[in-house]
Amino acid sequence: MLTYLKRFLIGRPLKSTELGEQKLSKTKALAILSSDALSSVAYGPEQILIVLITVGAAAYWYSIPIAVGVLILLTALIMSYRQIIFAYPHGGGAYVVSKNNLGKYPGLLAGGSLLVDYILTVAVSVSAGTDAITSAFPNLHNYNVIIAIGFVLIITTLNLRGVTESASILAYPVYLFVLALFILIGVGLYDIVTGQVSPALHTPIGTPVAGISLFLLLRAFASGSSALTGVEAISNAIPNFKDPAPSNAAKTLAAMGLLLALLFSGIVVLAYYYGLSPNEEVTVVSQIAELTFGRSFMYFFIQVTTALILILAANTGYSAFPLLAVNLAKDKFIPRMFTVRGDRLGYSNGIIILGILSILLILVFEGQTEQLIPLYAVGVFIPFTLSQSGMIVKWLREKPAGWLTKLLINATGAAISFVVTLMFLLTKFTQVWTVLVFLPLIVYLFYRIRKHYEAAADQLRLTTCEPSVPIEGNVIILPVAGITHVVEKSLNYAKTLSAHQIIAVNVPFEREEEAEFEEKWAKWQPDIRLVTLYSPYRSIIQPLIKFIDTVQNKASESNYQVTVIIPQFIPKKGWHNILHNQSGLLIRTHLLYRRNVVVTTVPYHLKK
Amino acid sequence: MLTYLKRFLIGRPLKSTELGEQKLSKTKALAILSSDALSSVAYGPEQILIVLITVGAAAYWYSIPIAVGVLILLTALIMSYRQIIFAYPHGGGAYVVSKNNLGKYPGLLAGGSLLVDYILTVAVSVSAGTDAITSAFPNLHNYNVIIAIGFVLIITTLNLRGVTESASILAYPVYLFVLALFILIGVGLYDIVTGQVSPALHTPIGTPVAGISLFLLLRAFASGSSALTGVEAISNAIPNFKDPAPSNAAKTLAAMGLLLALLFSGIVVLAYYYGLSPNEEVTVVSQIAELTFGRSFMYFFIQVTTALILILAANTGYSAFPLLAVNLAKDKFIPRMFTVRGDRLGYSNGIIILGILSILLILVFEGQTEQLIPLYAVGVFIPFTLSQSGMIVKWLREKPAGWLTKLLINATGAAISFVVTLMFLLTKFTQVWTVLVFLPLIVYLFYRIRKHYEAAADQLRLTTCEPSVPIEGNVIILPVAGITHVVEKSLNYAKTLSAHQIIAVNVPFEREEEAEFEEKWAKWQPDIRLVTLYSPYRSIIQPLIKFIDTVQNKASESNYQVTVIIPQFIPKKGWHNILHNQSGLLIRTHLLYRRNVVVTTVPYHLKK
Repeated sequence: MLTYLKRFLIGRPLKSTELGEQKLSKTKALAILSSDALSSVAYGPEQILIVLITVGAAAYWYSIPIAVGVLILLTALIMSYRQIIFAYPHGGGAYVVSKNNLGKYPGLLAGGSLLVDYILTVAVSVSAGTDAITSAFPNLHNYNVIIAIGFVLIITTLNLRGVTESASILAYPVYLFVLALFILIGVGLYDIVTGQVSPALHTPIGTPVAGISLFLLLRAFASGSSALTGVEAISNAIPNFKDPAPSNAAKTLAAMGLLLALLFSGIVVLAYYYGLSPNEEVTVVSQIAELTFGRSFMYFFIQVTTALILILAANTGYSAFPLLAVNLAKDKFIPRMFTVRGDRLGYSNGIIILGILSILLILVFEGQTEQLIPLYAVGVFIPFTLSQSGMIVKWLREKPAGWLTKLLINATGAAISFVVTLMFLLTKFTQVWTVLVFLPLIVYLFYRIRKHYEAAADQLRLTTCEPSVPIEGNVIILPVAGITHVVEKSLNYAKTLSAHQIIAVNVPFEREEEAEFEEKWAKWQPDIRLVTLYSPYRSIIQPLIKFIDTVQNKASESNYQVTVIIPQFIPKKGWHNILHNQSGLLIRTHLLYRRNVVVTTVPYHLKK
Repeated sequence: MLTYLKRFLIGRPLKSTELGEQKLSKTKALAILSSDALSSVAYGPEQILIVLITVGAAAYWYSIPIAVGVLILLTALIMSYRQIIFAYPHGGGAYVVSKNNLGKYPGLLAGGSLLVDYILTVAVSVSAGTDAITSAFPNLHNYNVIIAIGFVLIITTLNLRGVTESASILAYPVYLFVLALFILIGVGLYDIVTGQVSPALHTPIGTPVAGISLFLLLRAFASGSSALTGVEAISNAIPNFKDPAPSNAAKTLAAMGLLLALLFSGIVVLAYYYGLSPNEEVTVVSQIAELTFGRSFMYFFIQVTTALILILAANTGYSAFPLLAVNLAKDKFIPRMFTVRGDRLGYSNGIIILGILSILLILVFEGQTEQLIPLYAVGVFIPFTLSQSGMIVKWLREKPAGWLTKLLINATGAAISFVVTLMFLLTKFTQVWTVLVFLPLIVYLFYRIRKHYEAAADQLRLTTCEPSVPIEGNVIILPVAGITHVVEKSLNYAKTLSAHQIIAVNVPFEREEEAEFEEKWAKWQPDIRLVTLYSPYRSIIQPLIKFIDTVQNKASESNYQVTVIIPQFIPKKGWHNILHNQSGLLIRTHLLYRRNVVVTTVPYHLKK
């Protein structure tokens, strides 16, 4: 039944050779990989105004030069990631670039921040989208957490179905959102040009403002650049593109950059001309939409597509997290299971873990994940800085044709990203200090996991110089609880194994039981030696293990292998298992994990 | 480390032969087994007044005849249980008595209600005691649930330590409570006799009251008899008494009945003379104490001991539940594990399950378990009725000397208990209807469990007429993931087993891997046949199981046994296990539960 449910939800399994069909076209890739970046238009411009309002509405004109700064940073990032795409056509991303050029630890730092960041992306954007929906339907407000979890489950399922299928469903809201904002910006600009908006609403650019400081402007800039989270998604996901993957990815990246730049500047300009102030209840985009269209169909269309794209921004995390996890797992820094492709050829373990962790985050923060936004932004700009510094080192080392231009592009990107990171740490320390605690911990964990894998591989590798110890013969120990068919079957099996010796062991709790059992046994199996271990403390495991240890010590002197045969009856229905003491399981676990003993389970299936 | 914690909390293990030392003296037994019954004095009289106030304060005088009715019922119950103690010296209780005299299903009905009831006892009394404490310290009110769970954990630990040790600690509060109430009643009666209480406070007995009805009086009587819950505890626990157990138990029962009668009538009389009304904020006992002593030391002493005995009432559940569970488990109606004595000779599984279930109840009802009181009372009076009807049948059947008197005593008890049960069902149906749903379900579950145990025993029993199938030889299948020390060790082991055939099986996900592995294997182990099962859907289990099925079908034709040897490397530290795909475990589970295949695990312990 579980199999049918799985089939229904995620579809029939695909062969490994069907992988090519799961690749993304440019239009689908744009929808799938840029929802995170594009959705930030919904809150980025507002973040700038929130900082500026602390000085006063007269300072709003600064949003224009700050937006220009953000656009420069965006251009630098896009050009920089374009270079990364061609330099690392198998999927670059901050982890690979930093590791290859700056060394293991910077790479792990970048990988660790991104891994955590994608979980934050999912939790934060689903919560934001849910908030947008429950703001429209206030009677749903108490169900915020459940609705958010529902969305995570839906997105997880879509991703388990596979990338192309989810792309088809998820592409519409993204393009509708872009269309809606373009209409909004177009109509708004037309109103301004035709003079329908009073120029008295805004302070002219260049007006002197009392109390403005460089620190404040940098802080506003840092806040505004939170709109750039998500631009790295494409360079991580090159393996998901149709061939020729790098050039398709580069084109998609350019298209995303252009869309993001247009939408971002459009919203900033309109907000400035309308003289809008940030408002806790109504977002800036909603204010613009209401001023432009009134409460018409277009207004609601913009609100609904905004809510949808915020939820879909989570999908960027689902595209990037599993691929980053594969890279980290291939380098043995995280568990190997992340490299396994699921039934539908997606890296299902990564997808499932991402879903579980973001649901946990939503539960812990009870859906109030907005406080995590600065943390999330700083977690993006650390890998931005690292990957671009890595590219600088690469150009210096390799010096290909035109390397100086390339280096300059990456150096600009690295410098701005570094400044933004510092700004976050300086101006929002109380919200982001946890990064300084968690990142080292995560890197240390990566290091420990790698060390274990290396040690394990070392010990498992066959080297000719190490001859294995020969096994001269077998000693079989058979714990018996009574004289039953289960024991009979196990004993018959033991007799076929040409063992040196078979010892049946019984652990009675009472002296009377002991004598009685010995007598019965002597009648039933006179040829098989029975050892009874009276257990006054009513433990089966302890006397048994002690006895096995004694036998084992003696056996190993002459290179004999000890095998413990566990007779196990298997009930017909699963729930029957709780009706039986699982001594067999306990004995097996104790022996396997602590002793060098072979454990054989002989099943006896009950028929009713 | 876990072992040390366990030692610290519950003490060193005891030998089975030390059982005698764990038996209870009469004074300790009285404390341990009557806290439930005695604590009901704290709320029983109040329950009567709560019903009477619906007619008016003039009706309060009816509490005196109703109390007389409750005392008659108490006397009947005590005398009846005294007879049960001598008739069933190995621990009677409603389950055994009903089963032996009325048949299986009445027995199960009694056993099932009591089992559920003891869980309710623990949850309800601990919550009530916690409420009493947090009423005194209102800033603790938000932590009600945590405090209640803390008390359950403490009581569970004390009971795991063993009966005598917990008795020593738990006896003080019980005797202090009895002492405190005797002082209160003594001083109060002295005040009345010396005329310090104005007789104007109460309506004289016999005053006609408008609106009083038989239904209302019966309802008040039913409510008042909730003070009698817990009187059956002693007859369940006879095996816990020092020898001669039955006579010691009978004396303890008589002492408890006397104490309960004195305290109950004292409180009822004082409440009547003082003309007290039930009050949501202040209990009747607290009102009496304040009127008698003012807010002095004695007042607080009474309050504290009341809170403590309410919490300790839970302990009655801990004495009775495990013993009842043993009886049910011996008759195979509940899982066998309840018959196993723990390290300290208590039936630890029963104690632990009771703790877990009552914590769950507290969590689900968020500490507001008061609404469960009627449910709990009706769950007590059903087994009261059944056990006493059982005794009637016993006397009629056996007719020992003086059987008519005995029969009359039990018949009175049965009749009154039956009326009380009916009253609860009629007057509080909305609160107790769940009993009518859950009891049949529980009885059905008992029946299913018993059926499974019988079927299992049938199938396991060796009968001479059923010869076992001989095993002619062995076929060994060895799944191999690579060429490593783990595989080498398993292969060496397989070679010692004198098998008819050894087949190594590899499941590659890619065609290239397949060829490569076959070549390597041929060089390394040319004598061992290798089968590769290319798996385009990337599943290891499915192709492997399919292959094993094919081998199995062929092998069983000639009575060959198939053994699957699983090479398993065991990491040094537990947490390392999550770093490795647990394919071995998965294969083992699939094979053992679905196929008639022997599974052998060969461990290879990593050293670092």
